[in-house]
Amino acid sequence: MAEQESNALVEAHPMNGGDGPNSYAQNSTVQKRDMEAAKEMISEAISKHLDIDPNSFSNPSQPFRIADLGCSIGPNTFFAVQNIIEAAESKFKSIKQKSPQFQVFFNDHVENDFNTLFRSLPSTRKYFATGVPGSFYAPLFPNSSLHIIHLSFALHWLSTVPKDHGNSLCWNKESIYCTGKSKEVADAYFGQFKRDMDLFLNARAEEIVSGGLMCLIMYALPNRVKFSDTLAGYSFELLGDCLKDMAKRGVISEEKVESFNIPQYIPTMNEVKEVIKQNQRFRIVSIGTLENPSSVLTDQMFVGHLRAIVEGVIKNHFGDEMDTDELFSLCLGKLRESCHLFDDEKYLKNINLCIFLKTQE
Amino acid sequence: MAEQESNALVEAHPMNGGDGPNSYAQNSTVQKRDMEAAKEMISEAISKHLDIDPNSFSNPSQPFRIADLGCSIGPNTFFAVQNIIEAAESKFKSIKQKSPQFQVFFNDHVENDFNTLFRSLPSTRKYFATGVPGSFYAPLFPNSSLHIIHLSFALHWLSTVPKDHGNSLCWNKESIYCTGKSKEVADAYFGQFKRDMDLFLNARAEEIVSGGLMCLIMYALPNRVKFSDTLAGYSFELLGDCLKDMAKRGVISEEKVESFNIPQYIPTMNEVKEVIKQNQRFRIVSIGTLENPSSVLTDQMFVGHLRAIVEGVIKNHFGDEMDTDELFSLCLGKLRESCHLFDDEKYLKNINLCIFLKTQE
Repeated sequence: MAEQESNALVEAHPMNGGDGPNSYAQNSTVQKRDMEAAKEMISEAISKHLDIDPNSFSNPSQPFRIADLGCSIGPNTFFAVQNIIEAAESKFKSIKQKSPQFQVFFNDHVENDFNTLFRSLPSTRKYFATGVPGSFYAPLFPNSSLHIIHLSFALHWLSTVPKDHGNSLCWNKESIYCTGKSKEVADAYFGQFKRDMDLFLNARAEEIVSGGLMCLIMYALPNRVKFSDTLAGYSFELLGDCLKDMAKRGVISEEKVESFNIPQYIPTMNEVKEVIKQNQRFRIVSIGTLENPSSVLTDQMFVGHLRAIVEGVIKNHFGDEMDTDELFSLCLGKLRESCHLFDDEKYLKNINLCIFLKTQE
Repeated sequence: MAEQESNALVEAHPMNGGDGPNSYAQNSTVQKRDMEAAKEMISEAISKHLDIDPNSFSNPSQPFRIADLGCSIGPNTFFAVQNIIEAAESKFKSIKQKSPQFQVFFNDHVENDFNTLFRSLPSTRKYFATGVPGSFYAPLFPNSSLHIIHLSFALHWLSTVPKDHGNSLCWNKESIYCTGKSKEVADAYFGQFKRDMDLFLNARAEEIVSGGLMCLIMYALPNRVKFSDTLAGYSFELLGDCLKDMAKRGVISEEKVESFNIPQYIPTMNEVKEVIKQNQRFRIVSIGTLENPSSVLTDQMFVGHLRAIVEGVIKNHFGDEMDTDELFSLCLGKLRESCHLFDDEKYLKNINLCIFLKTQE
């Protein structure tokens, strides 16, 4: 077991901790809305696809184990877990079996704020709660120990920014993310996504019980749509413009901005299918897209959301002395100047994929 | 399962977090020394008393699960766990069985600094690490899910200060702890200890697998010795004197000092045996005392150790505005004035008990 060695190679991109105004806990309403949309699909998939062996659950040493990977600090993870438990209880009821005890493993990077997560555990929970520190691109659990694995909106975080074949740190210097405009950059990002997904799927295939269900909720791009043409892409464009402004004013170094890349890749649905198929450990039992209602975000919420997500990677790259208050107030100003933010004609939407997987038997 | 409700009734007494000069991590050498003394006894008990069912471990869904309860933030918990794993590996080897995967549950109060604990996990560990927030006076794990339960130097922390039968907050106003001089106070503390131990033993009896082993390392008093006559008692006397001095100077309120009680009870070996016997869920398979070598603490270490342990309860009672820097520098001054600190004739030693328990079959 080389859990810790593999984990050492993986970069942490924790969401903002605590529960202050810039925290992920206070800035995750977008994900919450999407999770609500996922609720019904998850319940249905558990009812239809989860295999429960009645014999194993009459054994008292077999609690039902659920993992939420990349859980951050709540409250969305508690919502997702509650939904899964209710669906599992219905399933047990439908086969006239008493519900087992539930044990839930909340996983995220070791840099995640587990103290806040633990302190905000719902007081009405009906499960034993545990925290598991470490990257989900490495083994995290004993073999065949999980019945349901859930992961939402986390697999677009790569384990690392893909390296250029040459030595240049600034191989994607025009942009701070994978816009989709340069084939070379997109290929490098997709290559990293594939390598990461292989690590992820191989680890999970060992950890899930036979008959268990894995539910992945992932951002995806519609075919032939570039990331830069989506609302999420727009937020990174905005951020990049503000960083360049700060570099021009000499507040931060130009080279630092050119070498900064957000380690995110948003695949298309076909790319996700291709990667899962090539990996060969899992088969897709069901795949669908979630309702993605129009945004009702205010300017403030839009920037708050962006900040909760990327402030960690920014501080990591630019150092703690970087004035992120200034950066995000610049973003807010620039956003207000541009009047087309919520113009659906101009900015396309991501797709939210909901994929259910079982191991190849 | 009323895990969270029971837990809400229990007070947290976390050791100082982080890894700064006042942290428990930097001030737990006394416990470390005692754990080293326990190492051999634990190895021997695992070899002799742990029942391993070879059939259950040929099942890949049966990792070997170990819990360290009241683990604080390291490094002693890592030392204890490593020792247990090595002993278990030897046991498997001796019966020509391949070692299973190990999963370790680090438990402490929800107020414990799990972030520091997780960041200091040994990089060479060969186990899957998880954190479990919550009081060990309540259920924490699914039934029959643990093979070895370990707990060292934590059961002297009561879940709460015992309440007086009357309404007075200052029923033990002469002292800040259970000195052993007043029968009434000692009875109240022992009553609370018994109630807490019952909660503890009942919860663990459900959680441990049949044939599993529980190892408790506990402070105890020699028969007919008062807590106030021990070195640990002396440190509380010192603390109480300094608090009274601060009250005299008007820095803190006299009533606050009179109503302050450290929720610790140090039982005798006979009391521990009596409580376990009356509870009826476990039987003692082995009991012994650890070598307790003479202290080699400097004044600074002595006060540092005291501070790491009680600063939390002090802040809880007196409020964050209490100047604990002043308090502990007063303690250091008073300690240096008195020259008899390490006079073994005057201050008796605790016994360190090492007790191995199995469930009544």
